[in-house]
Amino acid sequence: MKQFMDKDFLLQTPTAQRLYHEHAANLPIIDFHCHLNPREIAENHRFSSITELWLGGDHYKWRAMRTNGVDEHFITGNSTDWEKFEKWAETIPYAMRNPLYHWTHLELRTAFGIDKILNKQTAREIFDECNEKLKSPEFYARGLMRRYHVETVCTTDDPVDSLEWHKQVKDEGFEINVLPAWRPDKAMAIGNPTTYRKYIEKLSSVSGKDVRSFGDLIEALQLRHDFFASYGCALSDHGLNTFYAEPYQEKEIESIFSRVMNGEQPTEHEINQFCSAMLYEMAVMDAESGWVQQFHYGAIRDNNSKIFNLLGPDSGCDSMGDADTALPMAHFFSRLATADRLAKTIIYNINPSDNDMVATMIGNFQDGTVPGKMQWGSAWWFNDQKDGIENQLNILSLHGLLSQFVGMLTDSRSFLSYPRHEYFRRILCNLVGNDVENGLLPASEMERIGAMIEDICYYNARRYFNFCS
Amino acid sequence: MKQFMDKDFLLQTPTAQRLYHEHAANLPIIDFHCHLNPREIAENHRFSSITELWLGGDHYKWRAMRTNGVDEHFITGNSTDWEKFEKWAETIPYAMRNPLYHWTHLELRTAFGIDKILNKQTAREIFDECNEKLKSPEFYARGLMRRYHVETVCTTDDPVDSLEWHKQVKDEGFEINVLPAWRPDKAMAIGNPTTYRKYIEKLSSVSGKDVRSFGDLIEALQLRHDFFASYGCALSDHGLNTFYAEPYQEKEIESIFSRVMNGEQPTEHEINQFCSAMLYEMAVMDAESGWVQQFHYGAIRDNNSKIFNLLGPDSGCDSMGDADTALPMAHFFSRLATADRLAKTIIYNINPSDNDMVATMIGNFQDGTVPGKMQWGSAWWFNDQKDGIENQLNILSLHGLLSQFVGMLTDSRSFLSYPRHEYFRRILCNLVGNDVENGLLPASEMERIGAMIEDICYYNARRYFNFCS
Amino acid sequence: MKQFMDKDFLLQTPTAQRLYHEHAANLPIIDFHCHLNPREIAENHRFSSITELWLGGDHYKWRAMRTNGVDEHFITGNSTDWEKFEKWAETIPYAMRNPLYHWTHLELRTAFGIDKILNKQTAREIFDECNEKLKSPEFYARGLMRRYHVETVCTTDDPVDSLEWHKQVKDEGFEINVLPAWRPDKAMAIGNPTTYRKYIEKLSSVSGKDVRSFGDLIEALQLRHDFFASYGCALSDHGLNTFYAEPYQEKEIESIFSRVMNGEQPTEHEINQFCSAMLYEMAVMDAESGWVQQFHYGAIRDNNSKIFNLLGPDSGCDSMGDADTALPMAHFFSRLATADRLAKTIIYNINPSDNDMVATMIGNFQDGTVPGKMQWGSAWWFNDQKDGIENQLNILSLHGLLSQFVGMLTDSRSFLSYPRHEYFRRILCNLVGNDVENGLLPASEMERIGAMIEDICYYNARRYFNFCS
Repeated sequence: MKQFMDKDFLLQTPTAQRLYHEHAANLPIIDFHCHLNPREIAENHRFSSITELWLGGDHYKWRAMRTNGVDEHFITGNSTDWEKFEKWAETIPYAMRNPLYHWTHLELRTAFGIDKILNKQTAREIFDECNEKLKSPEFYARGLMRRYHVETVCTTDDPVDSLEWHKQVKDEGFEINVLPAWRPDKAMAIGNPTTYRKYIEKLSSVSGKDVRSFGDLIEALQLRHDFFASYGCALSDHGLNTFYAEPYQEKEIESIFSRVMNGEQPTEHEINQFCSAMLYEMAVMDAESGWVQQFHYGAIRDNNSKIFNLLGPDSGCDSMGDADTALPMAHFFSRLATADRLAKTIIYNINPSDNDMVATMIGNFQDGTVPGKMQWGSAWWFNDQKDGIENQLNILSLHGLLSQFVGMLTDSRSFLSYPRHEYFRRILCNLVGNDVENGLLPASEMERIGAMIEDICYYNARRYFNFCS
Repeated sequence: MKQFMDKDFLLQTPTAQRLYHEHAANLPIIDFHCHLNPREIAENHRFSSITELWLGGDHYKWRAMRTNGVDEHFITGNSTDWEKFEKWAETIPYAMRNPLYHWTHLELRTAFGIDKILNKQTAREIFDECNEKLKSPEFYARGLMRRYHVETVCTTDDPVDSLEWHKQVKDEGFEINVLPAWRPDKAMAIGNPTTYRKYIEKLSSVSGKDVRSFGDLIEALQLRHDFFASYGCALSDHGLNTFYAEPYQEKEIESIFSRVMNGEQPTEHEINQFCSAMLYEMAVMDAESGWVQQFHYGAIRDNNSKIFNLLGPDSGCDSMGDADTALPMAHFFSRLATADRLAKTIIYNINPSDNDMVATMIGNFQDGTVPGKMQWGSAWWFNDQKDGIENQLNILSLHGLLSQFVGMLTDSRSFLSYPRHEYFRRILCNLVGNDVENGLLPASEMERIGAMIEDICYYNARRYFNFCS
Repeated sequence: MKQFMDKDFLLQTPTAQRLYHEHAANLPIIDFHCHLNPREIAENHRFSSITELWLGGDHYKWRAMRTNGVDEHFITGNSTDWEKFEKWAETIPYAMRNPLYHWTHLELRTAFGIDKILNKQTAREIFDECNEKLKSPEFYARGLMRRYHVETVCTTDDPVDSLEWHKQVKDEGFEINVLPAWRPDKAMAIGNPTTYRKYIEKLSSVSGKDVRSFGDLIEALQLRHDFFASYGCALSDHGLNTFYAEPYQEKEIESIFSRVMNGEQPTEHEINQFCSAMLYEMAVMDAESGWVQQFHYGAIRDNNSKIFNLLGPDSGCDSMGDADTALPMAHFFSRLATADRLAKTIIYNINPSDNDMVATMIGNFQDGTVPGKMQWGSAWWFNDQKDGIENQLNILSLHGLLSQFVGMLTDSRSFLSYPRHEYFRRILCNLVGNDVENGLLPASEMERIGAMIEDICYYNARRYFNFCS
């Protein structure tokens, strides 16, 4: 019987173990998509307790606690840090086989050196030990990043963001690259004219370009795009329900924009047209700047109005949609390819029943200019667990070139999520190692195989993003 | 080489074997959703032959026989019991790797103590031996239920049903709980105004409420709901093409109802509106009575008009649909949650490409009031086999809390289907046991792991349904 | 550690090995669906180099090379055979875990007796050795077919094709059956009236029937259908976006046809109606001739306009669609079943998220007249790899009768694709053999199990298609 979470955790064969320990374990981390708060890096945030770090904003854990019958008071309510932690500790034994069980114990081990299993009995001592350690600088925000050998992180930022905290981090000479990434979802969100108008006013103000038309909007965004680039940004990201590729005339878009700014509610078709225009124009911007564009599509959000009214977005009430997406996705990229304006691209789908569709879609637009130009992103959100990662790696292997994959990212709000890179690397090495053991890959080619592991864990991302440091 | 179907059938590791034999094998069965005929329980039905028991209404077997080239005469036609059985016996060797191969031999072993492999050569002796045994009371309907250690069954009953057989069973003091479950599909089926009108007349008659409006309809259904509750019913069930969450005004529904009652064919949109109203009102009833509501969605039925015209529904011509369902499902539950009228809920999908969608959907509506309040039901219909069960258990584990799962049910018309609980339990123990052996779960936590197995096999359902006995 | 691609490649257990070597390895090949050029068979084509054979038209390899960053010049451009081969050799080490890695080395071994691993270092010697061998007659088109023990191939031919090359092959008495198959996609393609009109004129000319109406069209096609039958054709094939089952009146179809012939662009709805009528009439033809009808549905094609404008269709820019298909598919087959005009049928889906839907759909229309009358075709296109084949075999097993499966086909343009039958057979034997080893199938039934393997690899297809030879 294999020990729980020992040094060969998830590594089933000697070749897998060798690949991990010799080729993967010690590489730095390029976390090219995350939701860290740059202010916390700038201020080198000190966490008041493990509760803040673990339960402050982690809607995965909130969902698990609600499922386990924990009252909202102990999840997002006014209970004490200890009370919340205790409820979490009581939930954890019921989370066996859920990725939270592995994340939790992996974080305890790799960050705090705690090998105990968390449950009601061990809760207090673990709470106290963690909190004690959190007082020491190596457990402040920057300390945690250093502990996990992080080389670069890209945060997620709105075009109107001042990037002041990125500036501060850079000016202070922090040795880890902290780069912004461009997430202009709000610039497309005309579904709510009132909110949208406020957003456009803010954009006018920070860009210095008075936005009175769609043309102005693109110009203002380009100014901000350039501003982001001056901070080392080389990456955009879009959170989409679906892809948009509705035919439109520029004057139609101008008309929609101006009516929305006057408070008129657009129709579904107008929203589709507007998003099609915006998505295209922003993709062109990325292509012309040599950036990488990312698309996260298919989630349905804020599904529980009761909790949304109580807590707002990102409260654990998002899940997977099932809308058809292949055709607009193909049309969108075809238009860009035909115009020679297709940037390096990473597509993330939330519903794994789209896996094969996306994995074959990217092949249509590979053009030989950049190895792995079109990427199918690492298993996203709910899929970011052992089975989901294995599925993504296997399906990518079957329909594309695993060797050119840019690999893992945390997509996380937490400074404690870096062990997910370790998790990913172990899973990757296990799959490939097992193939060698089973005669599916030639053992004579171990040099190439080792290099492939290193590429996926680190070098591909370094080459692909080519972040200036 | 492992022996076929020995005591460690499906159990690949010592931990899996230990979990099954020590924690799962001996627990009683709560079969909370089935299609047994309550009259056969009341009358303690004696089966004329193994053909009646196996082939009388089992459209799974009919499909297999048709696929194997058996003439309809020997399937649903006027051939003798022996002829039908012989054709089935000839089909079985061609059903290797189909769940029917396991079900058949598991039933022969556990009910009749027959270890032989069924085929053309063994057909006659097995036929005779089964038929001989069926003459003895321990093989009558109640005897079979006792043999499998059944504690509670919930049948599937229309609101207009008199529940006379349930009453008889109860009055006689049968030691196994036989409870009705509320299946009001016909009360929603306005697509055929003639049939619908007849149904409403019947409902008026049995409820004592003259149904002349939609308001009356809800009132009449509430009367029957209360009547069902008085028989211990605590469970509803809906067979749906999809979920319905179309906006509507009450007066629109009244108008649709009155026009349908006058024989007018409703439009697709009107059907959607009407079903949205009905589904909501009935969900409110369940919530207010503290019942559990079940939804079986996504099947497309009676696809072969030729066979439907010949044999009617449930003849083996149903299969999986592929319509998009995530948004109406989310809207339906959100409306209930916001109104504080969300009952305990179990969702069953037929197409496994919806698995992850549903498994993540339930998380949106967990509210901490009841552990595992929102359930993703056990692998349904075509998915009720080893791979389907494994997929459901794994995906539920990844997106929810397996520990809170209420587990298996037969969904069957047959008194011989109880070994499916054994099948399920073995598969469950195998997955969890293998995780322990592979270091994915800590062996030090075997006490919790054993309790988890027991909960899923029995105690969760007991707590969740809380049937009065 | 298992050796790469040794004699027990893909065979994990002794039973799997025994099944393959004793029951599968030596059976002839019936390749009932391929895209070989019949002229190359008739002329016994001699390949100028391994580049022609491997890279001349293989869009799988083109996709891989583009993904690996190879310039189009070395893929479809005017570079030399050696340059193209060298680029492919450099790509292959990056294709580990992609089926191309296995196909490539399997083809090198089984055709050329070369056990080396292809890469930049070995490229020149492998190129030279292959090219040297290609000079010898046993490596001409017919030699390769003989080498792989091919018994029958069915090519893919348009109704207007003269079948002159089939005639020549037949007249010369080539011992391998080379039969045409009927692929009338162009006869349905009214979306482009100009192209369509030219096609109809050609059809008029070759059929001798002046096509002036939809009725004429069906008559002309029937004449060609009979002509194909006279060449031993017993198989049709349709490449469809989706299934078509739109209600229509014959006069509507006549009107659509006549307007399209006059150059008028049909609406989406008219295209659906027209395709519904055509698909039905052609299915009736197949039924009346006792042919097998095949449907390949769900691909989205020519997604990259830039490459399409450069290279035309089949250039590696096709991928998987995700449209809903269950209802029209059911309606189409139901209409045929009800009219007693349902031919033996094979359905191939491209998106594996449809696997369970299709596997259960065929069960609705099994009618007991022919064992396995409705077939779910072997894993198609992107799914034609180890995982895809395993999924198809497993899901077919669960929902239907694997025993009645007609098995593998290459669907290939290449004379070197026959090792895919070996690949398929190994995977099949491995799954079934492992089941025996794991106690999921009874070892006492090895005779039936061996027969099942032989049936799937050869005898089922022979019985099902019943090609005259």
